[in-house]
Amino acid sequence: MRYARIEAKGRTTWALVTEDGFQELAGPPRGDVRPGAATIDRGEARLLAPVAPSKIFCLGRNYAAHRSEMGFTHDGAPSVFMKPLTTIIGPGDDIVLPPRSLSDHVEHEAELAVVIGRTARFVSAADALTYVLGYTCANDVSARDLQRSDPHPTRGKGFDTFCPVGPWIETDLDAISGVRLRCRVNGTLRQDASTADMTYDIPFLIEYLSGFSTLHPGDLILTGSPGGTEAIHAGDRIEVDVEGIGTLTNGVVAADRS
Amino acid sequence: MRYARIEAKGRTTWALVTEDGFQELAGPPRGDVRPGAATIDRGEARLLAPVAPSKIFCLGRNYAAHRSEMGFTHDGAPSVFMKPLTTIIGPGDDIVLPPRSLSDHVEHEAELAVVIGRTARFVSAADALTYVLGYTCANDVSARDLQRSDPHPTRGKGFDTFCPVGPWIETDLDAISGVRLRCRVNGTLRQDASTADMTYDIPFLIEYLSGFSTLHPGDLILTGSPGGTEAIHAGDRIEVDVEGIGTLTNGVVAADRS
Repeated sequence: MRYARIEAKGRTTWALVTEDGFQELAGPPRGDVRPGAATIDRGEARLLAPVAPSKIFCLGRNYAAHRSEMGFTHDGAPSVFMKPLTTIIGPGDDIVLPPRSLSDHVEHEAELAVVIGRTARFVSAADALTYVLGYTCANDVSARDLQRSDPHPTRGKGFDTFCPVGPWIETDLDAISGVRLRCRVNGTLRQDASTADMTYDIPFLIEYLSGFSTLHPGDLILTGSPGGTEAIHAGDRIEVDVEGIGTLTNGVVAADRS
Repeated sequence: MRYARIEAKGRTTWALVTEDGFQELAGPPRGDVRPGAATIDRGEARLLAPVAPSKIFCLGRNYAAHRSEMGFTHDGAPSVFMKPLTTIIGPGDDIVLPPRSLSDHVEHEAELAVVIGRTARFVSAADALTYVLGYTCANDVSARDLQRSDPHPTRGKGFDTFCPVGPWIETDLDAISGVRLRCRVNGTLRQDASTADMTYDIPFLIEYLSGFSTLHPGDLILTGSPGGTEAIHAGDRIEVDVEGIGTLTNGVVAADRS
């Protein structure tokens, strides 16, 4: 099943994605959902970020090729950071670059995002997938210069609009065996990998994260970016594509202040 | 004025702290508040964490004495990290230590916390204080061994219960000129400093943070810990005291799993 969050008829609602459009849900898509009566044509709706998390945990250095291009080694400890919720934008929304006075080197990072389905605390890897609602595409946009110069990646990864997510949540995906994860910039392929190549796989990550912080329904885990991250510029069109989910497309615009 | 969040008569509400007890508010204390009719005796209410933020930004290395005891230098870039909302507990709640298999060295960090009062984006230091609702006490509890061994402080600072906050929000406080910030463990004074000794002061921090991430009403900024942080153990009683606000008291218990 595919769950979307849409704006239609002047309001925001959760919806089931159907062949022709959307079927409105009574509430957030968590476990048992009760489709309401209303059906909405595809043309009548605007897709929003299909998530309303209480937190975003992100993995760094979780694919060997990206670790290598960043000059990081694999030292055995997962690299976990957080992005503030103010980074979230939806399909079609613009990534706003920081003022040039702060950063002049921003890169895309295509990632598979896990959406938690029910409260998870001290979950074992063996049970972990039963806590997953589904998966979506994400872009861990990163001001590389600030990420390298600041003591922590909070600012470099944390500008408003630096976490495009969407287009919807896919519940049926075998992300463990591996699906293809790609990023195109203005149509040119920049990243192309399998989610099977993660250093720390999704069941491990859910065990690890829920071992210190309770995960709530809707919480997001960005599972790390494969190699091929490159600078993006105003006017670019960034597509993150996960096989079996779909394509998340965002434009890039210059800062709205100098 | 002092704003509290309380549990009374079987429900949770925001309240104005009065001489005898609490006066119920119609909604969260953001700017103009409308006291409701109900008055609640002090003995009838339990204080909860007086905040419901969308994010917690924390400053590291913001007092010279703590930088020195941690072996950090002042390199000119603010050290900003985030704690997940699942770390928040209120006055009287217990700090739960991690399983000993994960960490055996947890320390207290007494801090002044800023509570944002209205949406702040690209705010100048000169205007910053008009975006502050008030101040409260906080404890940036830290698993020091994990903080040092992990690539980022997310886990070491991020265990459930690792952010005690309270007892209430004080709106009238001259934190810039400096108020006394103290921590006692089992009655013994461990930390004693003035908030005037912050390396980056509160107006600067609001300008800096709102320059990359929009701050929402209720968001918390933990402004860093002075020197004197020490290990805490099950059975300890930790008091964080800010002159002009009051005392935040929390117990410490062992992990509820091995």
